[in-house]
Amino acid sequence: MTTPLLGTSFIGYSRSNGTEPCGSAVQPGTGIKLEPRYLTATPEEVEQAMALAATAFPRYSNLSGKIRAGFLRAIASEIETVVDDIVERGQLETALPEPRLRGETARTCGQLRMFANLIEEGSWVDARIERADPERKPIPKVDLRSMLRPLGPVAVFCASNFPMAYSVAGGDTASALAAGCPVVVIAHASHPGVAEIVASAVIRAAQLTNMPEGVFSVLYGGGRKVGQAVVKHPVTQAVGFTGSRAGGTALMDTAANRKQPIPVYAEMSSVNPVVILPGALERGEEALAEAFFGSLTLGVGQFCTNPGLVFLPAGKGDAFLTKLKALIEAGTPGMMLNAGICNAFAESTAAFAAAEGVETLARSVTDAGPGQGAPAVFTVSISNFLGNEALQGEMFGPATLIVRGTVEEIEAAIPHLEGQLTASLHASESELLAHGSLVIALQNRAGRIIFNGFPTGVEVCNSMVHGGPFPSTSDGRSTSVGTMAIFRFCRAIAWQNFPDAALTAELQEANPLGIKRME
Amino acid sequence: MTTPLLGTSFIGYSRSNGTEPCGSAVQPGTGIKLEPRYLTATPEEVEQAMALAATAFPRYSNLSGKIRAGFLRAIASEIETVVDDIVERGQLETALPEPRLRGETARTCGQLRMFANLIEEGSWVDARIERADPERKPIPKVDLRSMLRPLGPVAVFCASNFPMAYSVAGGDTASALAAGCPVVVIAHASHPGVAEIVASAVIRAAQLTNMPEGVFSVLYGGGRKVGQAVVKHPVTQAVGFTGSRAGGTALMDTAANRKQPIPVYAEMSSVNPVVILPGALERGEEALAEAFFGSLTLGVGQFCTNPGLVFLPAGKGDAFLTKLKALIEAGTPGMMLNAGICNAFAESTAAFAAAEGVETLARSVTDAGPGQGAPAVFTVSISNFLGNEALQGEMFGPATLIVRGTVEEIEAAIPHLEGQLTASLHASESELLAHGSLVIALQNRAGRIIFNGFPTGVEVCNSMVHGGPFPSTSDGRSTSVGTMAIFRFCRAIAWQNFPDAALTAELQEANPLGIKRME
Repeated sequence: MTTPLLGTSFIGYSRSNGTEPCGSAVQPGTGIKLEPRYLTATPEEVEQAMALAATAFPRYSNLSGKIRAGFLRAIASEIETVVDDIVERGQLETALPEPRLRGETARTCGQLRMFANLIEEGSWVDARIERADPERKPIPKVDLRSMLRPLGPVAVFCASNFPMAYSVAGGDTASALAAGCPVVVIAHASHPGVAEIVASAVIRAAQLTNMPEGVFSVLYGGGRKVGQAVVKHPVTQAVGFTGSRAGGTALMDTAANRKQPIPVYAEMSSVNPVVILPGALERGEEALAEAFFGSLTLGVGQFCTNPGLVFLPAGKGDAFLTKLKALIEAGTPGMMLNAGICNAFAESTAAFAAAEGVETLARSVTDAGPGQGAPAVFTVSISNFLGNEALQGEMFGPATLIVRGTVEEIEAAIPHLEGQLTASLHASESELLAHGSLVIALQNRAGRIIFNGFPTGVEVCNSMVHGGPFPSTSDGRSTSVGTMAIFRFCRAIAWQNFPDAALTAELQEANPLGIKRME
Repeated sequence: MTTPLLGTSFIGYSRSNGTEPCGSAVQPGTGIKLEPRYLTATPEEVEQAMALAATAFPRYSNLSGKIRAGFLRAIASEIETVVDDIVERGQLETALPEPRLRGETARTCGQLRMFANLIEEGSWVDARIERADPERKPIPKVDLRSMLRPLGPVAVFCASNFPMAYSVAGGDTASALAAGCPVVVIAHASHPGVAEIVASAVIRAAQLTNMPEGVFSVLYGGGRKVGQAVVKHPVTQAVGFTGSRAGGTALMDTAANRKQPIPVYAEMSSVNPVVILPGALERGEEALAEAFFGSLTLGVGQFCTNPGLVFLPAGKGDAFLTKLKALIEAGTPGMMLNAGICNAFAESTAAFAAAEGVETLARSVTDAGPGQGAPAVFTVSISNFLGNEALQGEMFGPATLIVRGTVEEIEAAIPHLEGQLTASLHASESELLAHGSLVIALQNRAGRIIFNGFPTGVEVCNSMVHGGPFPSTSDGRSTSVGTMAIFRFCRAIAWQNFPDAALTAELQEANPLGIKRME
């Protein structure tokens, strides 16, 4: 390993020598530029990282699940040795509070260990065995065995709003490495310092566990130049992205226009509709308003599952609105992740406030300081909502739009919504059972349906679906959270009439790994 | 049901009244136009079929697996009542021999019953249950349950080369209907009469089993107009296609450029490389040549798994080549599926014969008659092969290209191949074990790896992978044959904190269906 220089890309086990600066991190609010300056990976360095990933792929993808699990666990352990550095730098770069950064780091390490457990156990590969039947008429049956195998090197884009859990060693990286894919990360300009600390930890883990060089690289880049180059590169076989709709659809276009199109898993925009039926109001309007306010303002509203759209029956919910108004007005503006997000929040809330038929129910009485976002709630009739597609857009931050209409109008509106990560229904149990078609309409528009709860708080587990119809994600068949995320980076391969000794352990007759198989 | 008129589309339970003729079936070889003329579905009729599919979706997708299975079984039974009509009309339209048409019809019914068994049993939905833990610190754990659900209405394009098994009620239709998706079929101009017979059988089955109208429609259309309209339609949520690379990539472009991009499962072109190592020759070169000739000429070479590319060690295999030459020269030209395929075969073999360094090893001594394709074998050095990308193209028909080089050169060439449905390796067991990196290279380029066998003959079973990296298919993560084909038309949805009574049976606490679940 060459001497590490601050501010340069990680090309396999070397640090790059880029020359063109791509900027420094900027402290939210103060605008102070944080040392050091980072250097854009040169085209040659991108080429080098991709060549190393291509070379690493056959070796890395054929290591056993147990050995790859050791690498993932080592990453988690190495990250834990630098958690204080992460928290210190993270607060400067993102303005996220210390408990959030500690929690997100713990979640990141938890995700790595969850995938380690998954691949160490091994049944996830969906091994399927059909044995030969030479006596079958009219033609003998061959021996055919299949299992999931990794696609190849994966490009992972860091997310502005998750400097740990969806960045350098976050969910996309963990699931791709678990699947057996080398990863090339494109760092986010908002938190390059956290990226550097985490990248160093991953590289230490890779070296400690003797992984092939190229299994992991991290590139810094100006604007979208480096990212586009990686997505266009023929070695890249899939893309993981969490960010804006403009950014995600640009990557989808690039991937679709390659000589060999590749899958893009972009988690983009979602307003996470919340439908409130009368029975939920009857249980207590003020408590509902408090719970909703908590979800809306959590993390200054900068979650992909932020509830940005509420359907409330017309003529009901006065106490809910009164309480929500009071909470919003008393709400404290919070520092947002970066100036771009802060400006976009100000612009989108101003556009909503000015749209036809939209009324401002409440705004925080405290003015937002530099870099801050202040809570806001707007209301609109269902007819004005349906007549203006822009009102389905995202105000990324602590703001929501409450749509008023009859329950019948609300149900009829659901199929007109864009695809969503989540949809929430607040109702009594008898209303839930009586409104089966409403539930079906919601599930046709979303990946996760929540009863009497709010969408923030995404459990990392086997049954989580954090993905939904376009445009909430580029590929509604996928999830970026939970163990099913590994399936994004795999395809099934079948081996016909292979001798036992030439099969992978997962498919051998004696089932040496003791995994669950279909046979 | 309105009075059926021959030659018009099936719009739900009605026959259409299209006015614009899109042509008749043409008998291969004779060029005779077969009665009746077919009429293009009008834009209004396309709209009507899509509206019916949209209306059918919530009802159809929420029927139990057992009830949908009953529909699939009824389709198979209804097809069996008209098998003689299918065989009679099929011979006229496609020139396929009676045993092939009977076999393909049996396979079609077998596929329908295979999917019926799969969804009747029910475990395929990958039900996952994570129970709540209200005591968990720092935050309580929610109850979260997920399973696969259908995407929505699916467009299925009939294949020219499989008038039954990949057409109106073929594998794409069977797997989409099994998943819970309504299907809109676009008939193929080569066999509209078979399409009509089968469509009538499916409609009868749908009515007998009380399926919602719109669960199934079949559209006739001029050129690509109707197909493009269906793929562009906002109701359509996925596409199944088997055909040419030009046709498949056109659909991919259309789907990617929709306001909401949708997945396209196009099975396109594959030359199915066969690698022969010296050990296989030592077992008997003549027998190998006979087996290869059989696979190459099966069905006049009109299979997607036809072995169109062979790697043979330089300086070896003289007896293999001598025997193959003799077989090819004595080989009989066969009637091809239609004039377009026949012309394309003549053009592609002529282009290969004229390419730099390509030599014609053998051609059938019998001249091909009108509409026929005659077996042909070409040879080329590995350097000329690698220097001319056109030589990776498909000669769809009974022709193959034999590439000569050292075993090292052959192994080095594999990563330069385009994506393939299959790759075959002929070798001794000790060679197989000694050439692990060759096997890895082959599996990185293909969906199914065959040891000491040939790729034709695609077993319809749980472990079949009939899909591979682009351009063999549009989406190498999928298979169009076998039970895994159902996954193409699904996405996982999660339900959070739902009361048991509001959950689908698959996710209820008591597991009333008795399916395998992850919990």
